[in-house]
Amino acid sequence: MTQADATHAPGSPPEEYLAFCREGEQLCDLQRNGLWILQHPDRFCFGMDAVLLSDYVVSGGKEILDLGTGTGIIPLLLSVKTEAEHITGLEIQHESAEMAQRSVRMNGLEGRITIREGDLREADRLFAPASFDVITCNPPYMLPGHGLPNPKSPKAIARHEVLCRFADVVRTAKVLLKTGGHLCLVHRPFRLAELITALTGQGLEPKRMRLVYPFADREPNLVLLDCVKGGRSRLQVEKPLIVYETPGKYTEEILKIYYEE
Amino acid sequence: MTQADATHAPGSPPEEYLAFCREGEQLCDLQRNGLWILQHPDRFCFGMDAVLLSDYVVSGGKEILDLGTGTGIIPLLLSVKTEAEHITGLEIQHESAEMAQRSVRMNGLEGRITIREGDLREADRLFAPASFDVITCNPPYMLPGHGLPNPKSPKAIARHEVLCRFADVVRTAKVLLKTGGHLCLVHRPFRLAELITALTGQGLEPKRMRLVYPFADREPNLVLLDCVKGGRSRLQVEKPLIVYETPGKYTEEILKIYYEE
Repeated sequence: MTQADATHAPGSPPEEYLAFCREGEQLCDLQRNGLWILQHPDRFCFGMDAVLLSDYVVSGGKEILDLGTGTGIIPLLLSVKTEAEHITGLEIQHESAEMAQRSVRMNGLEGRITIREGDLREADRLFAPASFDVITCNPPYMLPGHGLPNPKSPKAIARHEVLCRFADVVRTAKVLLKTGGHLCLVHRPFRLAELITALTGQGLEPKRMRLVYPFADREPNLVLLDCVKGGRSRLQVEKPLIVYETPGKYTEEILKIYYEE
Repeated sequence: MTQADATHAPGSPPEEYLAFCREGEQLCDLQRNGLWILQHPDRFCFGMDAVLLSDYVVSGGKEILDLGTGTGIIPLLLSVKTEAEHITGLEIQHESAEMAQRSVRMNGLEGRITIREGDLREADRLFAPASFDVITCNPPYMLPGHGLPNPKSPKAIARHEVLCRFADVVRTAKVLLKTGGHLCLVHRPFRLAELITALTGQGLEPKRMRLVYPFADREPNLVLLDCVKGGRSRLQVEKPLIVYETPGKYTEEILKIYYEE
């Protein structure tokens, strides 16, 4: 999956945005409502998975929490894609949280988005139980300890379950969601059996699932899940989401997700 | 999903086969190695799901058991599609089991296929533990008690969980499979979360999954699962299996599954 900025035509940010940008950072145009985001190539940059997840979130939630928000891509996109009154992003890495805060201020969204620095494994100390309508998470996909050269690097923490196992996400979501609230996730299909078992085990019932296929005749490489706290067991497996029509050419649906509201 | 015989060009069975056919029954040409099967329109007739499941079974198993074999379609197809030394079909309904036995004799397959009449919930009394390499099952898809007009009819028993819940299939498979043996299933996607939770809960780890879509841009209506007893958690979600290219026209892959070995 390529990074989202691969789809972005080069544009120029408003001049006043440059003051928010520090050395080594880049300004990335989200091409939605004039939104821009700060990114740093040495840290984890957002990818298509975050964009697809933002689009998969059910509408109607007033209070949204994004677990492991990184540099804040999901809260920024949700501020456009949903009518949420307030969106909180929780991030354990100080530098990422600080960049996310600057991006929020830069876009003038302090009224709707709050970035909190903290550990999602202790999120029940930061937030009241059953206080969110929707929780989103684009968690680390890979298991820890598979010969990581530098397990403390920002990229390793974002990609591997170094500081957060999937079970932590599920436990936290269970505590912080209202009954009937939604946990919306993106993950890798190879972990689907484990994900579903962990989710149903905590009463977060998968209600919608969509597989993302790079090409129509290839194996999927992402899965989107929408789970309901206390929902009854019945899963709607949706039609395939195909990324490329031909190599390098996105499908109509992907272009719509990126550029239409 | 249409019934399999919808894809079959009319042919004439060998004359000696007519002696196996009783009043109200039909002879259906499987168009593979000269195989024919007895069917009765008042009972449950096999469908595409049984054909797809037979094709999804891993090769290499010497001893195969088909749970809820009905009129024996899966053992018959597996006798062609696999190198299995012996295939057993277990069926609770007397009339279906008797028809399956006649179909086996009619095809001269008594040496490789045995049909047993019995309840899969008590299969541990009929077979030794850990005695099968592969277990197949095309179970009833629907939950019981959803306003069934006649819950004891052969069709209701085949389609609804009247005499067998999914948990029974999983428990029986766990006992009768060798460690490392495969449970291959076909089911409805709307029950996927429940299926996966039940399977992993009994140590039958889903290792391969394929969704069957009637059309490329529609929701799937079948799911094929290959689970390994004692396997570690890692699922390969395979490329989509599309049934129709255009309405009424099967895809190349479906035609291959039906007519090629």
